[in-house]
Amino acid sequence: MEETGTKRLEGKSVILRLEFNSNEVKFGAVAAIISEMGGDIVAIDTIHMSHEISIRDVTVNVIDASDIGRMTDAIRQIPGMTIVNISDRTFLLHLGGKIEIVPKVTIQNRDDLSRVYTPDVARVCNAIHEDEDKAFSLTIKRNTVAVISDGSAVLGLGNIGSRAAMPVMEGKAMLFKQFAGVDAFPVCLDSQDTEEIIKTVKLISPAFGGINLEDIASPRCFEIERRLKEELDIPVFHDDQHGTAVVALAALTNALKVAGKPIGEVKVVVCGIGAAGMAISNILLAAGVKELIGVDRDGIIADGEAYDSSMMRSFAARTNPRRVRGALHDALTGADVFIGVSRGGLLRRSDVLAMAPNPIVFALANPTPEIHPEDIEDIAAVVATGRSDYPNQINNVLCFPGIFRGALDCRAREINEDMKLAAAEAVASVITDEKRNKYYIIPSVFDKNVVELTRERVIQAAIRTGVARRTPKEYR
Amino acid sequence: MEETGTKRLEGKSVILRLEFNSNEVKFGAVAAIISEMGGDIVAIDTIHMSHEISIRDVTVNVIDASDIGRMTDAIRQIPGMTIVNISDRTFLLHLGGKIEIVPKVTIQNRDDLSRVYTPDVARVCNAIHEDEDKAFSLTIKRNTVAVISDGSAVLGLGNIGSRAAMPVMEGKAMLFKQFAGVDAFPVCLDSQDTEEIIKTVKLISPAFGGINLEDIASPRCFEIERRLKEELDIPVFHDDQHGTAVVALAALTNALKVAGKPIGEVKVVVCGIGAAGMAISNILLAAGVKELIGVDRDGIIADGEAYDSSMMRSFAARTNPRRVRGALHDALTGADVFIGVSRGGLLRRSDVLAMAPNPIVFALANPTPEIHPEDIEDIAAVVATGRSDYPNQINNVLCFPGIFRGALDCRAREINEDMKLAAAEAVASVITDEKRNKYYIIPSVFDKNVVELTRERVIQAAIRTGVARRTPKEYR
Repeated sequence: MEETGTKRLEGKSVILRLEFNSNEVKFGAVAAIISEMGGDIVAIDTIHMSHEISIRDVTVNVIDASDIGRMTDAIRQIPGMTIVNISDRTFLLHLGGKIEIVPKVTIQNRDDLSRVYTPDVARVCNAIHEDEDKAFSLTIKRNTVAVISDGSAVLGLGNIGSRAAMPVMEGKAMLFKQFAGVDAFPVCLDSQDTEEIIKTVKLISPAFGGINLEDIASPRCFEIERRLKEELDIPVFHDDQHGTAVVALAALTNALKVAGKPIGEVKVVVCGIGAAGMAISNILLAAGVKELIGVDRDGIIADGEAYDSSMMRSFAARTNPRRVRGALHDALTGADVFIGVSRGGLLRRSDVLAMAPNPIVFALANPTPEIHPEDIEDIAAVVATGRSDYPNQINNVLCFPGIFRGALDCRAREINEDMKLAAAEAVASVITDEKRNKYYIIPSVFDKNVVELTRERVIQAAIRTGVARRTPKEYR
Repeated sequence: MEETGTKRLEGKSVILRLEFNSNEVKFGAVAAIISEMGGDIVAIDTIHMSHEISIRDVTVNVIDASDIGRMTDAIRQIPGMTIVNISDRTFLLHLGGKIEIVPKVTIQNRDDLSRVYTPDVARVCNAIHEDEDKAFSLTIKRNTVAVISDGSAVLGLGNIGSRAAMPVMEGKAMLFKQFAGVDAFPVCLDSQDTEEIIKTVKLISPAFGGINLEDIASPRCFEIERRLKEELDIPVFHDDQHGTAVVALAALTNALKVAGKPIGEVKVVVCGIGAAGMAISNILLAAGVKELIGVDRDGIIADGEAYDSSMMRSFAARTNPRRVRGALHDALTGADVFIGVSRGGLLRRSDVLAMAPNPIVFALANPTPEIHPEDIEDIAAVVATGRSDYPNQINNVLCFPGIFRGALDCRAREINEDMKLAAAEAVASVITDEKRNKYYIIPSVFDKNVVELTRERVIQAAIRTGVARRTPKEYR
């Protein structure tokens, strides 16, 4: 699922550093003007205060970025008032990066130094040299994931390159740590060549217990993931594909309960068969959907048509059992579920009206969904989007922390289909029968039960399918 | 400089988990036996205490690892006493690795999430996309160094591979952070091919503001460093070469003051012309040494001899101006300084007696120095080693944190010769005239002035030589 920030500069927050002569002007006057111009003062920090001169940092939320200009112009008109600096809170948060690498223990003296470094560390090195599996207990490999990107498909921004992709990967590392205690390091590669990427990830893999692929363009991402899964003995997970798929399945599980439809009997249309659409289709088929129709730029995908890629031919063979042909609206006739990972505004109200009664619509395109929820609220059983400003946000953050937490804790060799299905069940199960309704089919990312339940189910699935190399104490 | 841990299991510390029936046996009896067997109890933690059963973790220091066996055998003889577990403090410190990756701010709500991740992070990505230099201020590149190893020359252990090298690189990362606030991440490469290593480091470089090469075997390390310096625009520093060289020069600067000899007039013999010996020779020549003779396995290196490598031919041309030939003892006749980075026990007392009056001996081979300080204490002006259990330890930890701190703070393009010389001066200058003596020519790694002074001098040198891309406020 690709998300973007271009959709809103609204909700922006700035910090104004104001210097003024307190004999000449009172702060109340400034506050009044800020309010008048649409600003909401959320914090004031006094930086310097002397007999005459006062310097304060005033944090102001505005609805629209253009308000800032009007506001600062008005402030500048006040005699005795100077704007020293205007900072953007988001940029301030990014200064110097968002993560740091911290020793777990402090080296307080020569004795400590001799244990964590030479000479005593040599005994630990030797232990790993004699038994490489010990790397999982005696190094950061036990808890560390590489977040790998080539910067080719970053959010909704596209191919912005490896340096510009770093803030996203650092953000991802923050989420890994905060939500699941996983140490994640951003590795942005200065190459967009499939073989070079595969080679590089393999060569740097000794430090890591897992690989999270991120924002790598399709179709390159498929080959990279396939090969790395084959050639590495640690989990490799392309979050844009499988994270989205897991959360979509979790949401669909609950949406189907709201609509009162069993998964084995619904007709699902997936619109946009890129990386995310392919992964969503695959997990839905694995979860028991029998009639699934994929629609791409050229219309409905059907067996017997000529497709360039073997992946597409395989997709056609596994889906659309009635071999329906035509355009999106042909696929939608009588469909129970629409899942869009395509582009904004693609779906019309008339398309939704043509669906079966109580239709479920997941309009996941970002920033603009395939259809705005308000346009079909009266006719759809459930609507979900990828956005945080509507109910039912399909957000990968709901799954990758818990999946990797589980995989690392049982030292899984891979993240297989069973583990993904288990994760989807776990995420869905956070919402109890009493609480579930059309506006609440998926938990908040801040719900602590999400990671805990996901971890548990993922570990159980890993043990059951034989990919766990360690059984955590509570499962022995 | 290679160091190893095999030299001493002495000074080892173990944690014994003891379970005993407090009716049957008193802890005092155990303590007595531990003392008797040569153990020193340094901590006792009560884990469980009930009416009858008591479980305690007893941390015991022993001089010799073999004491542990005798001690535990004796404890097992005590009726009612069980040894539940014996843990090694060094291994305990390594469980799960020694570093973690931590968010600088906590994501407390949806608003925070939208700033550090989607959608707002996109504005930061775009800013870097438009101006790649912004990566230095808006990502971890500003403060992050990669510690790169291929595991081919780890400490004194040799070629133990990338997984077994991790504990050393993690230790290095700890030192970077604790001593200089630098974020360092260990990258252990699953390849020992020069071109693969170069390629990989280049591809992962976008996240990093500097590259620290570590424990890579010679001669591969020379080519890797040369090429990466050429092809990257961030500092590349092979610590085993240049870190050792900087600290050796710092120590020599002070040793020469103790011996009362000016650097331009001394005759220096460097024994062992590998990576460290080559770097030491180069920095000494740059610092003003005029007569330097290198000695290798095959004897004195002299211009006109046939050498395979162009590096060796260049070395011969730049050193040994009198074209002395022969073995180590021929080189040493009348020499003022011996610097050994070769192998233990190579130097005899008679060799030192053949040197000029007030000779300076740096016996840096590890674990066993070329000669033990006690064997020449009466005839040498100054003796230094690589070991922490003698005075005057030549330890890289004295220089790499401050050098990288300075290089990152001024966004240096490289770490050049002037910056290394400046770092050596800085380290030497920590020891004032009043304090300097034959047992104190180099500061402790815990001396906070070391990093501060090194940073300052390195920044000044970078600005002076035009490799600084940013002038820190205090130098404007």
